[in-house]
Amino acid sequence: MILALAGGVGGARLAQGLVQVLGADELTIVVNVGDDFEHLGLHVSPDLDTVMYTLGGVHNPETGWGRAGETWAFLDALGAIGGDTWFRLGDRDLAVHVERTRRLRSGDQLSGVTADLCRAFGIRHAVIPATDDRLRTFVDTDEGELAFQDYFVRRRCEPVVRGFRFDGASTARVAAPLAALHGSAARIEGIVLCPSNPWLSVAPMLAVPALAALLDAPDIPVVAVSPIVGGAAVKGPAGKIMRELGLAVDVTGVVAHYGARVNGWVIDERDRSHAGTIATTGHGVCVTDTMMTSPARSAALALEAIALLRTLGRR
Amino acid sequence: MILALAGGVGGARLAQGLVQVLGADELTIVVNVGDDFEHLGLHVSPDLDTVMYTLGGVHNPETGWGRAGETWAFLDALGAIGGDTWFRLGDRDLAVHVERTRRLRSGDQLSGVTADLCRAFGIRHAVIPATDDRLRTFVDTDEGELAFQDYFVRRRCEPVVRGFRFDGASTARVAAPLAALHGSAARIEGIVLCPSNPWLSVAPMLAVPALAALLDAPDIPVVAVSPIVGGAAVKGPAGKIMRELGLAVDVTGVVAHYGARVNGWVIDERDRSHAGTIATTGHGVCVTDTMMTSPARSAALALEAIALLRTLGRR
Repeated sequence: MILALAGGVGGARLAQGLVQVLGADELTIVVNVGDDFEHLGLHVSPDLDTVMYTLGGVHNPETGWGRAGETWAFLDALGAIGGDTWFRLGDRDLAVHVERTRRLRSGDQLSGVTADLCRAFGIRHAVIPATDDRLRTFVDTDEGELAFQDYFVRRRCEPVVRGFRFDGASTARVAAPLAALHGSAARIEGIVLCPSNPWLSVAPMLAVPALAALLDAPDIPVVAVSPIVGGAAVKGPAGKIMRELGLAVDVTGVVAHYGARVNGWVIDERDRSHAGTIATTGHGVCVTDTMMTSPARSAALALEAIALLRTLGRR
Repeated sequence: MILALAGGVGGARLAQGLVQVLGADELTIVVNVGDDFEHLGLHVSPDLDTVMYTLGGVHNPETGWGRAGETWAFLDALGAIGGDTWFRLGDRDLAVHVERTRRLRSGDQLSGVTADLCRAFGIRHAVIPATDDRLRTFVDTDEGELAFQDYFVRRRCEPVVRGFRFDGASTARVAAPLAALHGSAARIEGIVLCPSNPWLSVAPMLAVPALAALLDAPDIPVVAVSPIVGGAAVKGPAGKIMRELGLAVDVTGVVAHYGARVNGWVIDERDRSHAGTIATTGHGVCVTDTMMTSPARSAALALEAIALLRTLGRR
C-alpha cells in the first residue's frame, strides 16, 4: 500500500495520476483538512472536495476548485437577502456540503461520510481525511492571525505571512481507516507527498503526530513531487509565502524545508540544474516533466514517483 | 391595526390583497409555523416562505409554493449522492433556508429573522410567525401519527385523517412583535382568517393560547373568508379531510367548525344558497367572488372582508 498525502489542486492532479496506475488495494489518499471550516452553518472541506471531484471526474478544470458546469442561483439569491457570498458555493457543490453537514451532525465521522460520498462519485480508491478530529489552520500575518479561509479566500493571500498554527493538530488522531493501516506499518510500502503547498496543505497533515511518525519511520521511504517549478509555484501562494518567510523561492527551498523527512525528490526538467545539489544532501532525485496538464501526464508523473519510491525502498 | 391569520397559498393570496389596501401601520400578518420542520439540517418554514415570496413578488404562481424561475441543480446533485429529495428545495429557495437556519443557530428569534428576510424582499408590512417557540403539527391517520410534512408532501395527503396534534402549542407564546400589539388589545381593530386550511393551517395558530384568546376577545370582531367553495376546497386537502372527519364538505361545515369564534363570513357567489343559513346562526355574511385569480381580485376580496369587519365592529 502506498500513501499519498494531498492538499488541493496539485494534490488532486497527482492523485488522479496515481489512481490510474495503482489498484484500489495499492493506494490510500490522505487529504488535508486544515482548510475545513464552518460556513453558513455548513461544514466545508475544500481539499477533500477538490480531490473527490477530480477523481470523480466532475471537477472544474479551469478554476481548480468546484464542479464542472456549476451554476450560482443559490449564491445569487443569498446575496440578494444580504447573506455572505465571499466564499463561492455553487448549487451542485452545495449538495455535498449540506449532506456532509447533516451526517456529521447526526454523529457520523468525517472519514465515514467521505467514504460514502466518494463511493457515490464512483471512486474506488480510499480517500481519507488526515483526521476526524478538529484541525484548523490559522495564518499569522502582518494583519494579525487569520483563519485559513479568511487569509486564503476572503483576503486573497494578500497579508504578509509570518507563520502558521494548526489548531487541534497536536491531539488529533488519524482517522480510523488510516489507523488500521498504521497498526501494521509493514503494509505501508511508501509515502508520496503530492505537489501541494508545503506550508498550507502538507504541514497541517504533518502536524498530526501519527502522520509525522509515519513520515519519520525509517523503513517507509518518502518521495515528494516539488510544487515549485522554475522558481515559482505552479499554482497558488507558495512562492509568495516562501519570499515572506525569507526562503529562496526555488526547488532547493522546498527541499530544505522538508529536510530528512523526504528521501527522494521528483523535480521538473526546468530545475535540472538543482538535481546535483539535491543529490548531495542524500536524496534520490528524478528529473521529469511535472506539469500535469492532462490525466495522461498525471499518470506518467505518478509512475515516475512510484518508480523512485521503489528504488528507495530497495536501498 | 387589523390582524390577518394566514397559512399557505390561500392565505398568501389574501395577504397580497390586504397589503394593497391597508398601510403598513394598519395590517399585521400572522403566519402558521405548524408546518415548519428540520430538513437536511435546515429549518424550513413553508407557510412563512409562501407568504414572503408572494408579497415579495418572487413566488411561483403555478405551483403555489417556491420561487419563480426556480432551478434544481442542488436537488439533482443531492439525489445523485443519495440524499433525500422528496421535499423539493430549489436553488434560490435554499438561500432562505440556509440564511434562516444560520441565524436561528446563532440565537436569533424566528420573528426577527423573518422581519429581516421580508425587508430584503421589499415587504413593508409586518409578517410575524404565530410563535417563536417550537410548534409542530402532527396528523393522526389510519397509518398512525405522521409529522406534518410526512403526511402532506411525502405521503401526498393520502392517509385517512383521524385528528391532529399541535406539539408545543399549549406552552407556545406569541412572538414578541405580536405580544407588543396584544398588550394593547385596543389597538387591534379586528381579525381576518384567510382562506387557509382550517385544520392544517389555522388550527395550529389557534392552538397558541394567546392567539385563541385574541379571537375570543368580545371586542375584537373576526371575519373569515371561506376556503371551501361550491362544495370543494379551492386548493389542497381540506375537502378530503372534512369527509374523513365526517363533516359536510360545504361552506356550512367550515362555519360549524369555527362556530362562535368567527363573527362574519365572506363566502363565494356559488354558495349564495347557504347565506341565509349562516346568517341565522348569528353571523354577518358577505357573498362575493372569492376566487383570487389575480392581485386585483385579491385586493377586491380584501376590501370586502375589511368592510364586513368594520360593519361588525360597529355593532
